[in-house]
Amino acid sequence: MTPQALLFDVFGTCVDWRSGVAAAVTQMAKSKNLKVDSLAFADSWRARYQPSMEAIRSGQRSYTELDILHRENLAATLEEFGIADTLTSEETDKLNRSWEQLPPWPDTITGLIRLKKKFIIAPCSNGSMALITRLGKFAGLPWDCVLGAGLARAYKPDRQAYQRSCAALQLEPAQVMMVAAHNDDLAAARALGMATLFIVRKTEYGPGQTTDLKPEQAWDIIADDLRDAADKIGA
Amino acid sequence: MTPQALLFDVFGTCVDWRSGVAAAVTQMAKSKNLKVDSLAFADSWRARYQPSMEAIRSGQRSYTELDILHRENLAATLEEFGIADTLTSEETDKLNRSWEQLPPWPDTITGLIRLKKKFIIAPCSNGSMALITRLGKFAGLPWDCVLGAGLARAYKPDRQAYQRSCAALQLEPAQVMMVAAHNDDLAAARALGMATLFIVRKTEYGPGQTTDLKPEQAWDIIADDLRDAADKIGA
Repeated sequence: MTPQALLFDVFGTCVDWRSGVAAAVTQMAKSKNLKVDSLAFADSWRARYQPSMEAIRSGQRSYTELDILHRENLAATLEEFGIADTLTSEETDKLNRSWEQLPPWPDTITGLIRLKKKFIIAPCSNGSMALITRLGKFAGLPWDCVLGAGLARAYKPDRQAYQRSCAALQLEPAQVMMVAAHNDDLAAARALGMATLFIVRKTEYGPGQTTDLKPEQAWDIIADDLRDAADKIGA
Repeated sequence: MTPQALLFDVFGTCVDWRSGVAAAVTQMAKSKNLKVDSLAFADSWRARYQPSMEAIRSGQRSYTELDILHRENLAATLEEFGIADTLTSEETDKLNRSWEQLPPWPDTITGLIRLKKKFIIAPCSNGSMALITRLGKFAGLPWDCVLGAGLARAYKPDRQAYQRSCAALQLEPAQVMMVAAHNDDLAAARALGMATLFIVRKTEYGPGQTTDLKPEQAWDIIADDLRDAADKIGA
């Protein structure tokens, strides 16, 4: 069955968070006259991402939007790098907003524009609706609407994040395809009956990336990037 | 204060539901070899809109998406016009989807494209997220995300419809402007502290329209259409 809608992971799949966050850190460091390894800072900040959501998935903590988790994780990262005292609260807030201003991968816009002609396209990210809306506007991602954790109030790979996103479109999971560069994201989508499209992003975590270098299941479609995905799905 | 986001009523403000629904009724009647006054049919169908939502606003009925209310109201309208037995369930469903395929007013696309350059633009309609997403795609409305009743699970002018839409963007009501061709919609938005922009749509209900012909309060901006709104707000 041809899907009626494509749902997209965003961080890593559509945008290059590592370069974008590192660029914001470099800019901050320059303005404060600090020496910071920006890529190491971005990696450390991002390493706190899954653990912070896990507290919510496990029920230890009630649903809290990703912007707040990012802000908490940023404070911890600034501590780790020994520069927590050098930034004002406003400067920290500004750096936290770097997640709203990330560059798309070179193929993303062209690919999405092609896919949008044939399908409803919407993000199904762990970012809040506010974050993903502002990021989409910054990066020029032509979404038809914004779905995902912000709508579902549940973090992927919790099944509710996918289920409520499909339900918002009044579609069954089988009518929807999940597009992601992460095998665990697609495994959760497939478990619900969604179709799956794997995008190979070998440098999301930089040149030394060790995860998600290849598909771990026979996903319905496997593509090198979003242009290749459009080719393969006939859009 | 300049707003950061503009929220738009959709039916009547951005799209011409009466012409669109009547065209679908005409097409249905032709295919079934029936004689139906299509505009009268559209008016009768729409007249059931507010009462059906009122059952939910008052708490008599739990939140039910507008597509289902539309379908119930369509069944009643087909009965009224004495043609309920001539349509199959599939044909009735198809006619119900006419709300997903309504024409924008002539100024809507140009106006929204201009406004989108300066503000987050999102619908805050009583339509479901599914309906408003498909309608936006059909009509080419360049929304940044889809807010409103579908997200809030509450029908305007219930305050939750506006509050939850602003909250989804992590904005205070005072940072958001409601754009509508209906005074009661703006009155509810203003009561929460939102800014207000009235669009004069004198023929939403056809040439004999008697309501919302002019602003009933001193709204922050009053505009003839969405291009005029962009002029007046400096976008």
